[in-house]
Amino acid sequence: MDTSLKKYIRHIPDFPKQGILFYDITTLLKNKAAFKKAIDGLAKIAKGKKIDYVVSVESRGFIFGAALAYKLGAGFIPVRKKGKLPAETISADYALEYGTDSLYMHKDALKTSSRVLIVDDLLATGGTAAAVCSMARQLKSRIAGIIFLIELCGLKGREKLKDYPVYSLIQY
Amino acid sequence: MDTSLKKYIRHIPDFPKQGILFYDITTLLKNKAAFKKAIDGLAKIAKGKKIDYVVSVESRGFIFGAALAYKLGAGFIPVRKKGKLPAETISADYALEYGTDSLYMHKDALKTSSRVLIVDDLLATGGTAAAVCSMARQLKSRIAGIIFLIELCGLKGREKLKDYPVYSLIQY
Repeated sequence: MDTSLKKYIRHIPDFPKQGILFYDITTLLKNKAAFKKAIDGLAKIAKGKKIDYVVSVESRGFIFGAALAYKLGAGFIPVRKKGKLPAETISADYALEYGTDSLYMHKDALKTSSRVLIVDDLLATGGTAAAVCSMARQLKSRIAGIIFLIELCGLKGREKLKDYPVYSLIQY
Repeated sequence: MDTSLKKYIRHIPDFPKQGILFYDITTLLKNKAAFKKAIDGLAKIAKGKKIDYVVSVESRGFIFGAALAYKLGAGFIPVRKKGKLPAETISADYALEYGTDSLYMHKDALKTSSRVLIVDDLLATGGTAAAVCSMARQLKSRIAGIIFLIELCGLKGREKLKDYPVYSLIQY
């Protein structure tokens, strides 16, 4: 846990709707020292894990995942919403407040037995990360870890990801 | 121009619709050597420009922009579609095939007189990059350059950006 990064996160009440407190990471991203510190902090967690691919979900996940993939010298795999990936895909569903939605990954994205690190900005209920795990397993890769910048501990997202090592830099 | 990166770009005919040849960058991203080479190539262009902020448009732009911001030690500014940014925003319109759409940036994203680098994966008609330039000017920052991974030269997007230095790593 790195409490020094917390001061760069802006709290926006009632966004995207009444009663929700939104943790705004754009104030961290625009501060060059804080952004570097965040990526270096994620890289420290990943050290020694011999990561072949960093996998992230659009859009905010791409920011942390791509910078981390570059830092680690790994490949980067984008997970996207429907209709965005041009080649043959696999998919997995995740729960929304009402109903479900799906995430997609290219079928040829991950080599068999490759070591995968899943990276996202926020661990809330863990639904999207669990969907990414499901796709990584479909492609027979090995999930070396799941890293989040921010974890909302009260929502117990970790319980949905209990089969894997889960890390976060900032906890609320 | 780096012709050695072209072999990592996959060509997908008729995506997202009949008659369009789509240049798929996911095959470049997943190759760790090619991804590193692409980011290092973009960084080489940016060298000496004293960049304070890298500005990129969701979603694919985030991949190159965030990795480059980390490499350059700059801050990262996300430009987003409607309803995604939580604080006060400015906006600019760009043309679609039929009609227009808008892009948004936080009003407090860029400091006055800061040096900005705009980064995106693809220069097609130049509409979205021109919209980002318009917002950067509204915030009184200085546009040090606009860098694309891929430029589709036949669409003459450069003409829409002729007030600024425009660079691309791969040309078709």
